[in-house]
Amino acid sequence: MSKVVIPRKAIYRLSLYYRILERLHQNRIETVSSDALAKAAGVKPTQLRKDLTYFGQFGTRGLGYKVKSLLTQLSSVLRTTRFQPVILVGAGNLGSALLRYDGFAKEGFEILAAFDLRPEGAKSGLAKQKVLPVSELKRFVIENGVKLAILAVPGVAAQEVTNQLVDAGIQAILNFSPLILQVPPNVVVNNVNLAIELENLSYFIT
Amino acid sequence: MSKVVIPRKAIYRLSLYYRILERLHQNRIETVSSDALAKAAGVKPTQLRKDLTYFGQFGTRGLGYKVKSLLTQLSSVLRTTRFQPVILVGAGNLGSALLRYDGFAKEGFEILAAFDLRPEGAKSGLAKQKVLPVSELKRFVIENGVKLAILAVPGVAAQEVTNQLVDAGIQAILNFSPLILQVPPNVVVNNVNLAIELENLSYFIT
Repeated sequence: MSKVVIPRKAIYRLSLYYRILERLHQNRIETVSSDALAKAAGVKPTQLRKDLTYFGQFGTRGLGYKVKSLLTQLSSVLRTTRFQPVILVGAGNLGSALLRYDGFAKEGFEILAAFDLRPEGAKSGLAKQKVLPVSELKRFVIENGVKLAILAVPGVAAQEVTNQLVDAGIQAILNFSPLILQVPPNVVVNNVNLAIELENLSYFIT
Repeated sequence: MSKVVIPRKAIYRLSLYYRILERLHQNRIETVSSDALAKAAGVKPTQLRKDLTYFGQFGTRGLGYKVKSLLTQLSSVLRTTRFQPVILVGAGNLGSALLRYDGFAKEGFEILAAFDLRPEGAKSGLAKQKVLPVSELKRFVIENGVKLAILAVPGVAAQEVTNQLVDAGIQAILNFSPLILQVPPNVVVNNVNLAIELENLSYFIT
């Protein structure tokens, strides 16, 4: 079955809609208007309606969307590809904090292992995962069929480690390092830069 | 002095350019072409040139940008508003992980205190900050002139806590909760949703 081509930003919003619908469903709410769903997701109603047309029409004018059927269809588009094994590279301060955070596992993303250039200096403390040397990364990724990595190494090491991840067969990277990574076209990177987020916010403080 | 009106997304990119230029400067590199700077920032050269025109022209055709003077001018635009005091609300798993992460302080954002609805159940472990009850939030924010908050509470509590933050005078929120927050126009919110980032990446895994 060929996958519908949906722009990356729309996919991100579909995930948002999915989570809101899950909450509505848990609260036994059966229908939702596009205005209410759009407001909860922080998007314009026109944007919501456009996003939902990527995989067919759902809304009935005046009646809104059926929560359960929209959930089912979003789930099949997103393939609810949870339960993906993940590795984390860089067990310094941020990496260790992420390693101890159990929210990923709750969402179905289990961090199987952590890697560090100097595993003996890792600050992973009480985390249950082992911190392995980066030299073992490729074997581990291949043996465990890992496609998804969280990168939390310092900027100076980020590109070199990324090259190793790509070489090992990693297809998607959640990048917490301050560097923009250069990757081949078949590898996807999402960037999270906490310091820039704060700096950006502080710009708007009067 | 009135502030130049620069779109929010451009501000974000200016922060990126600033960090790249800092690295170049540390490495004693004196000039950089717009192509090289754009590539390092992951944007198109046309985008870079457009962003830099918001506060005047810097590039000399064929010679590129002078690293040091561009740094100085970016710094004055961004007002390098680091050294902002920050509070964190929600000392559960993610909040505690963020509390132990010392990268914020390194960038000049010191987390003064953490707040939780049930501070006695906080998982903050070895973090050096106190975890105070949310009931003390308003007094603390006013007394310490705090304008910036990191929100790491569960979705069900997020809007209620946000209302309290806004009421206390918080002007900018880094939101890690899965909820889109409703805030008045003078309050700025940046969202970081780690689970959705992973879900989004996993969509592109083949």
